Amino acid sequence: MRQAPSKRYKVTVRYVGSRYHGWQIQPKHLTVQQVIAETVSRLAGQPVSIIGASRTDSGVHAMGQVAHFDFPHRPSVPQIQKALNALLPWDIQILSLRPVSPTFHAQKDAIRKRYVYRIFNGMNLSPFDYERVLQIRHPLDVEAMQRAAAALRGTHDFTSFAAATTTVKSKTRTLFDSRLVRRGRYLTYHVEADGFLHHMIRNIVGTLIEIGLGKRRPEAVQPLIDAKNRDLAGPTAGPEGLYLMQIWY
Amino acid sequence: MRQAPSKRYKVTVRYVGSRYHGWQIQPKHLTVQQVIAETVSRLAGQPVSIIGASRTDSGVHAMGQVAHFDFPHRPSVPQIQKALNALLPWDIQILSLRPVSPTFHAQKDAIRKRYVYRIFNGMNLSPFDYERVLQIRHPLDVEAMQRAAAALRGTHDFTSFAAATTTVKSKTRTLFDSRLVRRGRYLTYHVEADGFLHHMIRNIVGTLIEIGLGKRRPEAVQPLIDAKNRDLAGPTAGPEGLYLMQIWY
Repeated sequence: MRQAPSKRYKVTVRYVGSRYHGWQIQPKHLTVQQVIAETVSRLAGQPVSIIGASRTDSGVHAMGQVAHFDFPHRPSVPQIQKALNALLPWDIQILSLRPVSPTFHAQKDAIRKRYVYRIFNGMNLSPFDYERVLQIRHPLDVEAMQRAAAALRGTHDFTSFAAATTTVKSKTRTLFDSRLVRRGRYLTYHVEADGFLHHMIRNIVGTLIEIGLGKRRPEAVQPLIDAKNRDLAGPTAGPEGLYLMQIWY
Repeated sequence: MRQAPSKRYKVTVRYVGSRYHGWQIQPKHLTVQQVIAETVSRLAGQPVSIIGASRTDSGVHAMGQVAHFDFPHRPSVPQIQKALNALLPWDIQILSLRPVSPTFHAQKDAIRKRYVYRIFNGMNLSPFDYERVLQIRHPLDVEAMQRAAAALRGTHDFTSFAAATTTVKSKTRTLFDSRLVRRGRYLTYHVEADGFLHHMIRNIVGTLIEIGLGKRRPEAVQPLIDAKNRDLAGPTAGPEGLYLMQIWY
């Protein structure tokens, strides 16, 4: 029997991140990458590696994570997607699956990503939002936060907002969108960029919250960017409000 | 020290029903009533019983269940509510608490209740909706379901839609609202009545789904009501889509 060449597939994945220690495989902790890799391997009958576009942190959610893998056989696309979803746990779902060029790389080829960060500003966070929305009980000055969010748009060196441990060469990124939308007691921060540094969005949100609490002024954002010093920005906001929404190639 | 008379409190409760075997206390299974009674008793320092307005089934959710209990001391209202919410698990929340007349009865005094039933009609139910929305993969004829829902409005004997084990004397109820609303792939059945029989809403929804699937005609609703025979209606729809929304007194 002739062995057909393996085929590369691009998958779009939606997951509730609460039960997982993030995307990236690590010893001793359950991760999304591990669960998907094990499921695809089980279907393939041999070990298959999965490469994801974004290493979402522990507790972070995804509506549109993208990954690729090489599958050894050539079953039909709906067949693999259906089989994977039947085998995956309830909190991980393959939204779409399609064959791509063998040179496609989910992480390296990504040109733009969109995230949202959800905040509930009030006393009674719904149990239905538990581990899915960040709760801030103290009233926030939303307009100040909106001005600060807008000031982050454009191309900047985001050193002040990157995890201190970040080792990438360039910390310059372009934010195409940076916008806080209020709907009742819910605030959603929309952010879109050509890439993000580790903890960047959660550090931005932590800073926006301090502005909303009146601990900082919205005008302080530009000097904060200019300072290129992580120690000066706000704390890292919790993972539960963060959703990876979409990735462009 | 003088012992102040106990005071009756009315509480409004929101809960994610997935982990619980319904409202009503029962041996061997965890129920919402039990968890609240234990929490209130712990706070009171003595056993306190809780009476709920509706005995929601296993897996059914509530945005506005109402209950009453007699508390032996007289702490301030915000104090009890805060203490209860601090002690309750993440999936049960006291939305409001207020002193009421010692004759108030959460179950007997209810005059009107509103529920919704949520359906996702499509292939990829979001993991965020797991155990919170009923999924129907096969396309539904929503207009036929809407006509059938409207035909249920008014005062009828709902024997055909009551659990066969229902023992109440009168099975006549008045539906003030019975309406299916579509929003994208989500369907929400809104229903409001002076009371509901056991499984009544889930049996109505099971019947509406059969109409949506073309297994019954919407015109068959009136003869079904007239038949007063549980065997003729559709199956009981799953509990995951049902939400107790509001109770009037």
